[in-house]
Amino acid sequence: MELRVQDVGEQGLLKRVQAFCPSAIVGDDAAVLPTEPGKSLVVTSDVLVDGVHFSDRTTPPESAGWRAAAANLSDLAAMGASPSGITVGLGLPGEVSVSWVERLYQGMTSCLQRYDTAIVGGDICRSPVITVSITAFGQVDPTRVIRRSMAQPGDAIVVTGYHGSSRAGLELLLNPDVEPELEGRDLLIRTHQYPHARLDVLPPFPCAGMDSSDGFADAVLQICRASRVGARLDRQRISIHPALRNWVSPEQAMQWALYGGEDFELVLCLPEDLAQELVERLGEGSAIVGTITSAQTIQLIDSTGTHPDESLTLNRGFQHFQGS
Amino acid sequence: MELRVQDVGEQGLLKRVQAFCPSAIVGDDAAVLPTEPGKSLVVTSDVLVDGVHFSDRTTPPESAGWRAAAANLSDLAAMGASPSGITVGLGLPGEVSVSWVERLYQGMTSCLQRYDTAIVGGDICRSPVITVSITAFGQVDPTRVIRRSMAQPGDAIVVTGYHGSSRAGLELLLNPDVEPELEGRDLLIRTHQYPHARLDVLPPFPCAGMDSSDGFADAVLQICRASRVGARLDRQRISIHPALRNWVSPEQAMQWALYGGEDFELVLCLPEDLAQELVERLGEGSAIVGTITSAQTIQLIDSTGTHPDESLTLNRGFQHFQGS
Repeated sequence: MELRVQDVGEQGLLKRVQAFCPSAIVGDDAAVLPTEPGKSLVVTSDVLVDGVHFSDRTTPPESAGWRAAAANLSDLAAMGASPSGITVGLGLPGEVSVSWVERLYQGMTSCLQRYDTAIVGGDICRSPVITVSITAFGQVDPTRVIRRSMAQPGDAIVVTGYHGSSRAGLELLLNPDVEPELEGRDLLIRTHQYPHARLDVLPPFPCAGMDSSDGFADAVLQICRASRVGARLDRQRISIHPALRNWVSPEQAMQWALYGGEDFELVLCLPEDLAQELVERLGEGSAIVGTITSAQTIQLIDSTGTHPDESLTLNRGFQHFQGS
Repeated sequence: MELRVQDVGEQGLLKRVQAFCPSAIVGDDAAVLPTEPGKSLVVTSDVLVDGVHFSDRTTPPESAGWRAAAANLSDLAAMGASPSGITVGLGLPGEVSVSWVERLYQGMTSCLQRYDTAIVGGDICRSPVITVSITAFGQVDPTRVIRRSMAQPGDAIVVTGYHGSSRAGLELLLNPDVEPELEGRDLLIRTHQYPHARLDVLPPFPCAGMDSSDGFADAVLQICRASRVGARLDRQRISIHPALRNWVSPEQAMQWALYGGEDFELVLCLPEDLAQELVERLGEGSAIVGTITSAQTIQLIDSTGTHPDESLTLNRGFQHFQGS
């Protein structure tokens, strides 16, 4: 019979998950970590609940763990920070299997190792529903903090990679019989289950921006609101992965690119020449997709003239982006 | 009709609770905080679940919030650190009233203000059960970190205040009809509902120790295990508040002092002369209660000879402390 959380108890489970933490960290009331001189501390938190943010239907525990870690690391990347570590608070019903918990931690640590960071603390307790609370912290050069509020008219708007792939991967997971032969099928699914945080971007100059965890359109909207500016976007330049482009209609692909979310790319606003440099450095998927304007609207134009222009007023929500 | 979480939505609720955070922090993917040169970062986490860690029966939301903040600040105090801030992750059923959530935040911020710190980030999401996840972080001089593993034979064992009061306060809350005229009744209840974190202690020399959140006996046991030493404690010297001493039998008071928990005092091990100095500085309730030994046992002696000596073997749990 499979070992359950209630069989090993909170202390027994803590011992098992401590195997996923650096041993120097374990055993005191709190973790102590070195800091770099001249850097500021960056802190971000997420709470994920079973059935709301993840589900065994689309996410094995390794993927739920990876995604939770990646989402928090993405918030650090969106501030221009480098990660120092994460803490993991776990609420668990007694009937959850110990191996499920170990696979969740395995997923988190696999993601963290990719970025040379670790779980440095946490807590486990009983709860009627699986709840994963992650706090990530990192360090940033205070002159290189990426803020939403710093976009200026004339700035180029850069995406660091493709949008829509994660939503496409979710669609394939929800409908396993669809397109079994689709080229790039595994890649789209992997993009959903094991997304990357763009901690590699670290622009070496001040810029405005955020990550696209809630969708590319939402990121542009949030930046424009915080900076009190507008934007002009060219739908032909928004990068969509060839696997997605070859699968669904251009309209569907654009919907997922704009509103799908969870691609965990960065949306950055910076002077045109620096933007060109950055896009060249980042390579595939990265592109200049538009310009910050002094208008109070976000315009979605089509440089090929196929689609009529659309526009969004900033004080309306992004859910109206499509219809206006 | 009372406004509920489901009436205002996650975004509406976030706006309301942001009123409890410093405005400079709100509005980006993560909070950015200054750090002091030469200090290390200290991080600790707790997850609290409704019905497991708090209950409307004994804890109004202000108290649940205060206690959650105090427990995490106490972990910082137990490392010799000063607080930089906390993040709060909240899982909430839709039917919880908005005022309950605001009162919870009010309790947290009241506690934090006492120590000149603040809520600097967080997340709110739907959950079938109220879950409060707190991560506290602070800074410590790396040469002044208090660790469990650094106790040495000959060290004096210091408590920074009274033990047993929190458990006594809980008893009064659970049995509201008991002892309505008891002197110090309100004080014992307040000690349970609004405990203080001993961030004022900050010993100006290296010492071993931890906080007594899981009980004084457990703290001694954990320190002895981590340091591979033993301890000799005098039950006559373990400080018990006069209000508790005047209420229950000496045996009951000692049980609560040893095993009650949640007093959030510090248990520190340091050379005798420095211990004397510290106890004088801290005043009321602080005392030298015993000595670290090279034995592999914890002995509880009675300098008045009233009780027989008791002893505990380190590889048995503290739950056997009483019976041995």
